[in-house]
Amino acid sequence: MINSKQPLYLKIYERYKAMIISGRLVTGTKLPSIRRACNELGVSKTTIEAAYLQLEAEGYIKSKPQSGFFVADIKPFNYERKKMPALTKKTPNINIEFDFVSATVDKEGFDFNLWQRYIKSALRDNNRLLSYGEPQGEADLRAALADYVSSRRGVICSPDQIVVGAGIQNLLQTLCSIDEKHSTVAFAGIPFSRGSAVFSSFNRKITVVDYSYLNISNYNLKDVDYVYTNPSHTNPWGDILPISQRLELIKLAQKKNFIIIEDDYNSEFQYFNRPVPSLQGLDSSDNTLYIGTFSKLLLPSLRISFMVLPAKLLALYQKNGLIFNQTASKTEQIALCRYLRDGNLARQIKKARNLYVAKCTQLCEKINEYGEDNIRAIMGTSGILFRVEVNSRLSSEELTSHAMCKGIALRALEKTCSKEKPCLLLSCSSIPSDRIDEAAKRIVQILNEKTDK
Amino acid sequence: MINSKQPLYLKIYERYKAMIISGRLVTGTKLPSIRRACNELGVSKTTIEAAYLQLEAEGYIKSKPQSGFFVADIKPFNYERKKMPALTKKTPNINIEFDFVSATVDKEGFDFNLWQRYIKSALRDNNRLLSYGEPQGEADLRAALADYVSSRRGVICSPDQIVVGAGIQNLLQTLCSIDEKHSTVAFAGIPFSRGSAVFSSFNRKITVVDYSYLNISNYNLKDVDYVYTNPSHTNPWGDILPISQRLELIKLAQKKNFIIIEDDYNSEFQYFNRPVPSLQGLDSSDNTLYIGTFSKLLLPSLRISFMVLPAKLLALYQKNGLIFNQTASKTEQIALCRYLRDGNLARQIKKARNLYVAKCTQLCEKINEYGEDNIRAIMGTSGILFRVEVNSRLSSEELTSHAMCKGIALRALEKTCSKEKPCLLLSCSSIPSDRIDEAAKRIVQILNEKTDK
Repeated sequence: MINSKQPLYLKIYERYKAMIISGRLVTGTKLPSIRRACNELGVSKTTIEAAYLQLEAEGYIKSKPQSGFFVADIKPFNYERKKMPALTKKTPNINIEFDFVSATVDKEGFDFNLWQRYIKSALRDNNRLLSYGEPQGEADLRAALADYVSSRRGVICSPDQIVVGAGIQNLLQTLCSIDEKHSTVAFAGIPFSRGSAVFSSFNRKITVVDYSYLNISNYNLKDVDYVYTNPSHTNPWGDILPISQRLELIKLAQKKNFIIIEDDYNSEFQYFNRPVPSLQGLDSSDNTLYIGTFSKLLLPSLRISFMVLPAKLLALYQKNGLIFNQTASKTEQIALCRYLRDGNLARQIKKARNLYVAKCTQLCEKINEYGEDNIRAIMGTSGILFRVEVNSRLSSEELTSHAMCKGIALRALEKTCSKEKPCLLLSCSSIPSDRIDEAAKRIVQILNEKTDK
Repeated sequence: MINSKQPLYLKIYERYKAMIISGRLVTGTKLPSIRRACNELGVSKTTIEAAYLQLEAEGYIKSKPQSGFFVADIKPFNYERKKMPALTKKTPNINIEFDFVSATVDKEGFDFNLWQRYIKSALRDNNRLLSYGEPQGEADLRAALADYVSSRRGVICSPDQIVVGAGIQNLLQTLCSIDEKHSTVAFAGIPFSRGSAVFSSFNRKITVVDYSYLNISNYNLKDVDYVYTNPSHTNPWGDILPISQRLELIKLAQKKNFIIIEDDYNSEFQYFNRPVPSLQGLDSSDNTLYIGTFSKLLLPSLRISFMVLPAKLLALYQKNGLIFNQTASKTEQIALCRYLRDGNLARQIKKARNLYVAKCTQLCEKINEYGEDNIRAIMGTSGILFRVEVNSRLSSEELTSHAMCKGIALRALEKTCSKEKPCLLLSCSSIPSDRIDEAAKRIVQILNEKTDK
């Protein structure tokens, strides 16, 4: 920390400090009197005093009344500066021409200026921003969220049941913290590694139930405490869980006494239908915990998610949960509250959905046109994702690496659509509207290099 | 969800849905053909089609080619809407005249307009805000933080060692998640309930070591994995840990193989001295994890904290930690990065510190003047807090309740300064500069009602 711009007193302080730490000045050594030091070093009394006071404050020296300053009882210490650990730099060298992987929100579909205005308006709320936020989330935001999920998602709740947090993982951490029981969590549907990582870190037992959601009543759910589901998005291409299976699951939760965690991720982006109302609203026995997030709806960089607790968990939260501080930004909570109240989210979703439908439809049509019999694109029922089946003896992963070398980012689908053919799961959100034809031509061209013609 | 503004197709959908759920339409019942329904209900073909498609999408009905729509296999279900849980409202009725408890940042000491400008500038970074943030925190912010803690706190680190999170609790959750061992955490110094709550929730064992920090070498630290400390703020009124004990602790960590968690909370607000450099910078054996936060330095509503991991924990983070998403707002991370780079934090702290010194000094002088021999105010060495000793047979808590009835918010100090007298720990941050004399008079007047004259 020594540099030439340092005040003089700090230089003197640093010099003494180094001598004491290295043992060159041993315990009990008397320091020069302030007057003598002034004369010897040619500096002012204040400078010496400031240096000595700092040394004393940190415990390097002790003052004895009427006799001066003495080196404190410090064992010599090898004060070797650690080296800075070397920076690890990862520089990806491939220039991506078309990115079919990225799940960023589509620039074309998001009214950034509008959101900026709400943040600016929230920033004017000086008094609120100068204090800590409510642990559970701002009260006005929770009221706006309760209204929103009631009208848009059929969730029945009061603002008191809502807990806000910076992301789903953070909410799950709160859940594990309030329910200390060593529970077992069964994941149904899309495996959600970021969710199971949280439960694992709290030492909860994880099981995975049949991916297909068929025959829920046959699920082996002995001693399960939570069943984690995405009923509005049961697979990557967005199929929903039919009503009969929703009711089955609700009945099972009541019978076997588990909590359904309904992760309502991506529910608003149903292409062809109105979004299906939540499972929570159907569950009159109150065994469902509903989770919503704004990363997909609004901005991925916006770290605001929320959960709606059923009564038994709410009681636990009120007992054990309030010691956990809020993690979501207060400015963004205030902004989101007003944005919701003014009806902008509903408008934003409509706009984004129309854009995604248009882009995905066009992309699929073009890929099917250029791909002829070798490459088949299939629209999902919701979300911004679509599937592509390829007539190839290569695996999905091999196709992905091949395309990556050519500057096209693709994602392999873990569970293939058909058993024989490799399958990809692609997103349209990073493909500009005016380059769809070009993107479709390019992907077909590259995949065709590996098809079995 | 039924209301008069609903589109017609939704009303038809809701009507069929209710009949199917209640069992009035049983499995296998054929729905009227689209043409017949049009005629009967006097609506367009599109309206009926939209209603049927929605019912089909949710699994209420099934279409059979060339024969029509049939009610799906759904067991009748008691679709009783849950009642909204009653709102619990807590309305505090007391009108607080002077608040000596609140730890909000002082309005007078914070340049809000400047901070707003940085947020607005961050908001212009559309491209960055449309994508997810780095799990570890934005790279440019981490670089700015590494510079800041090196020059201001003597912390030696590279940006790679820094992990950003929305608050200290969130960082401790990450720590527990990456180090899955069932460790024991010893808290030294100020008991930090929000910190120990996190470790408890991860089922870690908590011990508390001697509050006084004396004789560190005698600490019973058998099988301890972490020692949680506040070396820059060992007690509520801000005494620092002297160098001899810092070195002792560092040696002990090396010998007994534990990690020191250095919570550098409030370190920058030393009244009379330059802030003492961090313990992390002294620890050449790299057993210290440094934690910093901006809630006290900048804005309580700003949820950005960071930790500097020693090499062995960094390895664990790189292995297990990247699955945990970033919780801090990206907008605020970008803003804070630029704010730091431009040197504004150092300026802000200087300004706030000068204001706090002036206010606390004046408050203490006035209280001592009016309090005569019965009430004694004592400045701390750092922070915005000071102590008040009262000649009274009441307990600190009784004095606090008495004052609350009179509209003065006070906080009792758990560990009293002297053994006989009740003691309060007060903050000057919510008392306006121009009302200090008035505030001092009022607190003395109210406490004097209970002193032993």
